[in-house]
Amino acid sequence: MPPQNEPPKMPIDGVRNLITIGSGKGGVGKTTVSVNLAIALARLGQKVGLLDADVYGPNVPLMMGIHDTPYAVENRIQPLEQHGVKLMSMGFLNPGDKPLIWRGPMLHSVMQQFMRQVDWGELDFLLIDLPPGTGDVALSLIQTAPITGAIVVSTPSEVALEDGRKAVLMFRQVKVELLGLVENMSYLIVPGTGQKVDIFGEGGGRRTAEAMDIPFLGELPLNPQVRIGGDTGRPIALMGEQEPQAEGFYAIAKQVIARCSAGPLRKAPSFSIED
Amino acid sequence: MPPQNEPPKMPIDGVRNLITIGSGKGGVGKTTVSVNLAIALARLGQKVGLLDADVYGPNVPLMMGIHDTPYAVENRIQPLEQHGVKLMSMGFLNPGDKPLIWRGPMLHSVMQQFMRQVDWGELDFLLIDLPPGTGDVALSLIQTAPITGAIVVSTPSEVALEDGRKAVLMFRQVKVELLGLVENMSYLIVPGTGQKVDIFGEGGGRRTAEAMDIPFLGELPLNPQVRIGGDTGRPIALMGEQEPQAEGFYAIAKQVIARCSAGPLRKAPSFSIED
Repeated sequence: MPPQNEPPKMPIDGVRNLITIGSGKGGVGKTTVSVNLAIALARLGQKVGLLDADVYGPNVPLMMGIHDTPYAVENRIQPLEQHGVKLMSMGFLNPGDKPLIWRGPMLHSVMQQFMRQVDWGELDFLLIDLPPGTGDVALSLIQTAPITGAIVVSTPSEVALEDGRKAVLMFRQVKVELLGLVENMSYLIVPGTGQKVDIFGEGGGRRTAEAMDIPFLGELPLNPQVRIGGDTGRPIALMGEQEPQAEGFYAIAKQVIARCSAGPLRKAPSFSIED
Repeated sequence: MPPQNEPPKMPIDGVRNLITIGSGKGGVGKTTVSVNLAIALARLGQKVGLLDADVYGPNVPLMMGIHDTPYAVENRIQPLEQHGVKLMSMGFLNPGDKPLIWRGPMLHSVMQQFMRQVDWGELDFLLIDLPPGTGDVALSLIQTAPITGAIVVSTPSEVALEDGRKAVLMFRQVKVELLGLVENMSYLIVPGTGQKVDIFGEGGGRRTAEAMDIPFLGELPLNPQVRIGGDTGRPIALMGEQEPQAEGFYAIAKQVIARCSAGPLRKAPSFSIED
């Protein structure tokens, strides 16, 4: 039985695994991980959707290189599709530079529509790119949706890890299983020379994952090609698993598939009928 | 006369200039700019306070290297002081990794207390390190305080600039003067070799500032020493104006002093009594 006062977590029709990608701090590469993980999962044969829940800074359209307007069929919003991934983002509905000056309750309502009134169809994975932090949108989503597991992205800097630990504890507090922590921008390979430069302090992600007793999903180097891929709408994962700059994302995708199909992942509480 | 329905903007006792430092996207170095700008202003002879309004990810205590608890005297909270700067942060009241799971209205009330019930004393500059984005806390603050001017921080990546433009338009929409845009992480100087590596796409900050007709306050390189300074509580500006790695922050500080003492800066609307 779910505890009193906790809203029931209604499943999303047709969606097998609901994965949230969060971070304590912005700018750590949460959306970069989301779009590349989505593409890698799709290339590995999974049916994938990506919901951009970062309403104030929706960067998924730019990174996926698509700026159309979704239309509705019989009251169901049709997601856009790009690079083999079904997409929904506030950026499709509020294009351009105009800021969205909305407060919590309105965001809550929009996110519920994005999850439940979008015609996602049958999906192996619906990834949700959460806004950074532990604020209203993140909270509302994880309290109302049956989340299979959460991924937390952080750079290895102390400052990012300080906030990353808060995100891990937020998921834990609301009883969402942690799929693991990804360390992004671990180090820089200088183009041309191949010199490895420690920028944000390598190794902090792994140490943090171990200290918090959650899986460490791997480290991704700070790679100008990854940034350029995002800025031009051609995420690096499109180059395929064999491409050294993309392989880190495929390695994470395989861990996600393995964890989610293995079954023993603790599910979020769901309805149960007892005698 | 302020427009109907707009709450009056009460001045903050003793504070000459109220400067907000914002960004569309997190992780672009907003707090790094805030702490180093605060120290640079103090070293240049100004009386400075720094209010950390990033309630969900308050990194000012870590970056300034101070983790005490403020106490109250006659109902006025006494700010902490470090490196010559008076400080207030949610991180002092909620230390450790526990996430703050609060919604909009509670944050609004705390921010008003941080501005108005803290014993800031006489200040030339009170800097407010806003949370990233255009959400509740940012909105509440800029709608209720007489802000002298706003600084927007962005990296040169298209993704960060996309969100940075939203922040500029948010300030413009609520009629807060833009002091200018700072481009952070413009390029990397490889330690040892001095090689300049373009990581996030140099030059985008200046072009964006020009296109939006706001001052460009300068570019700051991606510098591992700056990150280490923040991670260890010894911001690089402590090394003084002559230190090449710190001079960019002093250059911004001087522009801020010049703009704010020049006088013609458009002020936020304030009370007026008419016959």
